[in-house]
Amino acid sequence: MAGGGKKKEVKKETGLGLSFKKDENFGEWYSEVVVHGEMIEYYDISGCYILRPWAMSIWEIMQAFFDAEIKNMKIKNCYFPVFVSSSVLEKEKDHIEGFAPEVAWVTKSGKSDLEIPIAIRPTSETVMYPYFSKWIRGHRDLPLKLNQWCNVVRWEFSNPTPFIRSREFLWQEGHTAFATKAEADEEVLQILELYRRIYEEFLAIPVIKGRKSEMEKFAGGLYTTSVEAFIPNTGRGIQGATSHCLGQNFAKMFEINFENEKGEKGMVWQNSWAYSTRTIGVMVMVHGDDKGLVLPPRIASVQVIVVPVPYKDANTQGIFDACAATVDALSKAGIRAEADFRDNYSPGWKYSHWEMKGVPLRIEIGPKDLANNQVRTVRRDNAAKKDVSRDNLVESVKNILDDVQQSLFDAAKQKRDACVQIVKTWDEFKEALSQRKMILAPWCDEAEVEQDVKERTRGEMGAAKSLCTPFDQPELPEGTKCFASGKTAKKWTYWGRSY
Amino acid sequence: MAGGGKKKEVKKETGLGLSFKKDENFGEWYSEVVVHGEMIEYYDISGCYILRPWAMSIWEIMQAFFDAEIKNMKIKNCYFPVFVSSSVLEKEKDHIEGFAPEVAWVTKSGKSDLEIPIAIRPTSETVMYPYFSKWIRGHRDLPLKLNQWCNVVRWEFSNPTPFIRSREFLWQEGHTAFATKAEADEEVLQILELYRRIYEEFLAIPVIKGRKSEMEKFAGGLYTTSVEAFIPNTGRGIQGATSHCLGQNFAKMFEINFENEKGEKGMVWQNSWAYSTRTIGVMVMVHGDDKGLVLPPRIASVQVIVVPVPYKDANTQGIFDACAATVDALSKAGIRAEADFRDNYSPGWKYSHWEMKGVPLRIEIGPKDLANNQVRTVRRDNAAKKDVSRDNLVESVKNILDDVQQSLFDAAKQKRDACVQIVKTWDEFKEALSQRKMILAPWCDEAEVEQDVKERTRGEMGAAKSLCTPFDQPELPEGTKCFASGKTAKKWTYWGRSY
Repeated sequence: MAGGGKKKEVKKETGLGLSFKKDENFGEWYSEVVVHGEMIEYYDISGCYILRPWAMSIWEIMQAFFDAEIKNMKIKNCYFPVFVSSSVLEKEKDHIEGFAPEVAWVTKSGKSDLEIPIAIRPTSETVMYPYFSKWIRGHRDLPLKLNQWCNVVRWEFSNPTPFIRSREFLWQEGHTAFATKAEADEEVLQILELYRRIYEEFLAIPVIKGRKSEMEKFAGGLYTTSVEAFIPNTGRGIQGATSHCLGQNFAKMFEINFENEKGEKGMVWQNSWAYSTRTIGVMVMVHGDDKGLVLPPRIASVQVIVVPVPYKDANTQGIFDACAATVDALSKAGIRAEADFRDNYSPGWKYSHWEMKGVPLRIEIGPKDLANNQVRTVRRDNAAKKDVSRDNLVESVKNILDDVQQSLFDAAKQKRDACVQIVKTWDEFKEALSQRKMILAPWCDEAEVEQDVKERTRGEMGAAKSLCTPFDQPELPEGTKCFASGKTAKKWTYWGRSY
Repeated sequence: MAGGGKKKEVKKETGLGLSFKKDENFGEWYSEVVVHGEMIEYYDISGCYILRPWAMSIWEIMQAFFDAEIKNMKIKNCYFPVFVSSSVLEKEKDHIEGFAPEVAWVTKSGKSDLEIPIAIRPTSETVMYPYFSKWIRGHRDLPLKLNQWCNVVRWEFSNPTPFIRSREFLWQEGHTAFATKAEADEEVLQILELYRRIYEEFLAIPVIKGRKSEMEKFAGGLYTTSVEAFIPNTGRGIQGATSHCLGQNFAKMFEINFENEKGEKGMVWQNSWAYSTRTIGVMVMVHGDDKGLVLPPRIASVQVIVVPVPYKDANTQGIFDACAATVDALSKAGIRAEADFRDNYSPGWKYSHWEMKGVPLRIEIGPKDLANNQVRTVRRDNAAKKDVSRDNLVESVKNILDDVQQSLFDAAKQKRDACVQIVKTWDEFKEALSQRKMILAPWCDEAEVEQDVKERTRGEMGAAKSLCTPFDQPELPEGTKCFASGKTAKKWTYWGRSY
């Protein structure tokens, strides 16, 4: 009981607790945790958010990984203007229909009206492809493989949510052109694999690789692949990142032609692919808990926080020195470690503070630890405590961090898997949907049927739609019927509500 | 004569020559060289340009340096929205007066008018400082040191020029707040020194560190320091990067207060500082020649281009293998080397192509080189040729690249210094201005006098203005008079026309 009392006291002292619980009021909990965790500050323009250093550092770590990987693939970075003229933007009809309602328009500079309104890029296909047409002449100009890191703007009105749905966001967008469909197809999957690695290896979030339905594919493209994550608390799927094969549709509109080895005219095959700061929001939603953020070690800018725990009469200087030496040893081994030496906060306040910020591992050093040549480690993910000898500190900490990374993934996968429900009939489907499941169902693959599913599930919570057709297909016995139409099923597809 | 004929032939074959000469038609030469060098593509919106990979890679190399340096200074990256509401933008009067005519306004999304027009950031002081006010409470919240890498928009109408003056550009902007003026003053100079290093150590361009006049300082700030470069061909100074002390002016407008150790209320001291893609344009202007770009090795994404020179009957495979081995050896030593194995271009075409792109060093390997276990090196800056044994290839190439870097700086400094003219009277000043000099003159430091100089020098070429008051001041004998007003001079200041 004394312990409980002490805890409450600390919480009161810190003022750091969250007022909402993840399982009770997920939406409010999320808003609170991204703000209290110092990832986000709300901004005075609705749907825009400030990315604070704690969030930016995560973005930078993922960026360093992805940028190096695509450079290995000989993809080169460039930068195209944020502005696009309306005539170019509207060149591909399906594409612009998909984006038009969300485009922000600049119509004035200073006090003067512009002659023609200019759009802010919602994505850069139409910005870039007129120049692909200019740069590509012969087969030796191919493949052309470009990427840019930039901001894009989609002026959405529904449910702005930090990271997940914001009017401006940061992303990378890759745009590539090949002589053959086979090369384009291959790259689509190479990039998708990098996206899987970002989610699974960095963010510790299980995702499903698959292909989008015709209704859900990228406007104007040939086919869309994606990695799909799932948020158990809301029972919603979330598109994690997309790798599109655009086919030759844009090439036709923008006249991106080339002469092949035999002197024949050909049209290029194109891809575009992107992941955004949304990744960070998915990570917060999946791992966060009632004490705040929980960051996987690989993307945490501070992996280990060292907190001195001085006592009256104890060797305070010795404790501080041991903390500094610990940070030093870990830093030298490439572990991102910091000490919190602030003298105006109690150890208890610091524990709560760094728990709120999701630091994967805390190291406490008090008089007893000093005497025993050890440190106390406390994991953020499961609060497990372990005393570790200072003699093999680095190895022990590395092992614990690896274990935290793996445990977070395993726990997330277990939760996600528990939400997956296989259904075969409409009744089962409706029941599973009401239980907020990620539903795997046999489907006839007809667009009208998907449209029909949407209409029949419309309601307060939002309609269900197809999430993806997983590449990893369970066996589909001959004669299996579509859950929705009763026609012959062609494939297993994931369905559910989504962000 | 045979050689001359051959050269012409190659030029004709390549189609790579520039049609304008740097000393004859600088403006056209510059436009041509940035396009033919594949740095820039002109865009269909005036004043916007596409940064191609050849330019982006330079930006990324400078970014890697600067980002690591500021992280060492405990400055953290963040990202604030590209949009700012008019009420916030207009909060600091002098500041908005400086930027208002160039602000681009978003007034529509999709087909709907926005309730209130929203500005696109021309710079982020007013975007950020309302949140500085929120985040800073006590002295322990200080210093607050943030930076962001982003795009900004200034809808200028005069002389759009790639890199130098564009409606959208990339930059970093640092924004910091301190408890004391002394700390702010110190950081201003630390950052300025990093800017000097970018110009002098990376871009091989000599710059002058100094302070801007009251007329030329940042709108709303306390004082502005800058690094100033000079373009001999146009006789214009160019502001290379600026490090501002904002004093407490923004703190007052945005109420950025804190409680100090004694419990007293204080106001923060602020800095902001930035460098942009303009740096790349200055580099092109200073080093480029009639054969194209000339890139300093430290910022060249390809430092060494290896070209096989096969002959009939020669051991072509042996030559190709030697080229590949050369690239391999150089790459392993950290030198950025590539081979051009394309079979549809002649060696002569390749020479011209990579000269146009400014690669610092070419390595040619032909039958004779193969036989002698050597390679031929050809410097881009001075065309000097040197045979180098393959036994100590890496060391030799490193030495040559170091020498190229230093030679470019020395040559640029010599040219710049030759343009500096010390004047003491108005007549000398006018004469020096007509000769397109960078003029160092004793000045009374009065704003009305600078205004007067501007008015008296107005004309086709543009008025003269003060560039900076260099920190490195020559002796100013007592009684020296201002060149323009005849009053007592207080300092030596650089004057001239500028970009």
